[in-house]
Amino acid sequence: MEFSSRLIENAVNEFSQLPGVGKKTALRFVLHLLRKEESASESFSDAVLRLRKDICFCNNCHNISDKEMCEICANPHRDASTICVVQDIRDVMAIENTGLFRGQYHVLGGIISPMDGVGPANLNIETLVNKVASGSIREIIMALSSTMEGETTNFYIYKKIAPYDITVSTIARGIPIGDELEYADEITLGRSIQFRIPYSNQLVRS
Amino acid sequence: MEFSSRLIENAVNEFSQLPGVGKKTALRFVLHLLRKEESASESFSDAVLRLRKDICFCNNCHNISDKEMCEICANPHRDASTICVVQDIRDVMAIENTGLFRGQYHVLGGIISPMDGVGPANLNIETLVNKVASGSIREIIMALSSTMEGETTNFYIYKKIAPYDITVSTIARGIPIGDELEYADEITLGRSIQFRIPYSNQLVRS
Repeated sequence: MEFSSRLIENAVNEFSQLPGVGKKTALRFVLHLLRKEESASESFSDAVLRLRKDICFCNNCHNISDKEMCEICANPHRDASTICVVQDIRDVMAIENTGLFRGQYHVLGGIISPMDGVGPANLNIETLVNKVASGSIREIIMALSSTMEGETTNFYIYKKIAPYDITVSTIARGIPIGDELEYADEITLGRSIQFRIPYSNQLVRS
Repeated sequence: MEFSSRLIENAVNEFSQLPGVGKKTALRFVLHLLRKEESASESFSDAVLRLRKDICFCNNCHNISDKEMCEICANPHRDASTICVVQDIRDVMAIENTGLFRGQYHVLGGIISPMDGVGPANLNIETLVNKVASGSIREIIMALSSTMEGETTNFYIYKKIAPYDITVSTIARGIPIGDELEYADEITLGRSIQFRIPYSNQLVRS
């Protein structure tokens, strides 16, 4: 693709580095910005610059935050002895949206994936183990994706914290609510029978 | 969607104003930038800022350019008496990629679309008429989209330049090369028979 201007070429190259954005989509973004007023591009540019410059991570859970401790960790009404381990901030947002978890989080910042060159040392696993070793944790809930990488990470973390006297659980795997049984895959259906939940438990919880 | 940081919220809002980008995709872009080094965000931010600040339009054809006259208009080997009228810079790039047009362009900056509040006064039509009136133009090739708005714009411009002694043509409409006849729509197929091209012409040109 040839551009009539170096400025456009630069901007298209920058946009096309975003995930899922090719040169054509990037050009569409660039032409959109060009059609808007200059102030729009200025505030866009400023938001991106400040995003990376001023951002900090919560010292306790590694969630993205404006301050040294995020709002969730700073909230005294949340149960600091129950920790939900997630891959990244998107998962925190998704679980927060359910409104059903009142504990704290621990954001790993990724999952173990040798294919992408991500090993345990690249993740926030050591701080989690230290938290557990301090004796203040009662339960760890593993809420990682149900993929090969997610299961590997689950197992690695489990091995690390198994010596301590705490409960380790994973979020339930099973048939999504509203789904029809005939379309469920065999592994999910099999596990949902194997790890069935007493009906009386569900009556109490809902 | 609730965010744990005002900085993230700002950046997501800015990204989600781009065409075809929702809040979830915007968050994916933001997390991508956060994972990269600070220099990546800086160069991204800089490219967007400079894009809008330093950009200028060719005085002759309204194409986007770094200088007062774009490279196409400044090229002495291009035929300045044949003008291809297009909607925007993307169409210039598409036609340039074919390598089969050696004339100059005239970028309208849009098409007449009352639904979107775009009238003839919002487009670069007057400068085109002035160019034609100066007497230096031999042929105008209308290369707009084959939509209601495109045809309206074609007709409006045709009316404006009809008094002058020049050839006005449109790009050929017909069955795309490689397409099977049975899947072609009736209007296209009908017009492709009505405006058939002598076979001998095609032998000479290819």
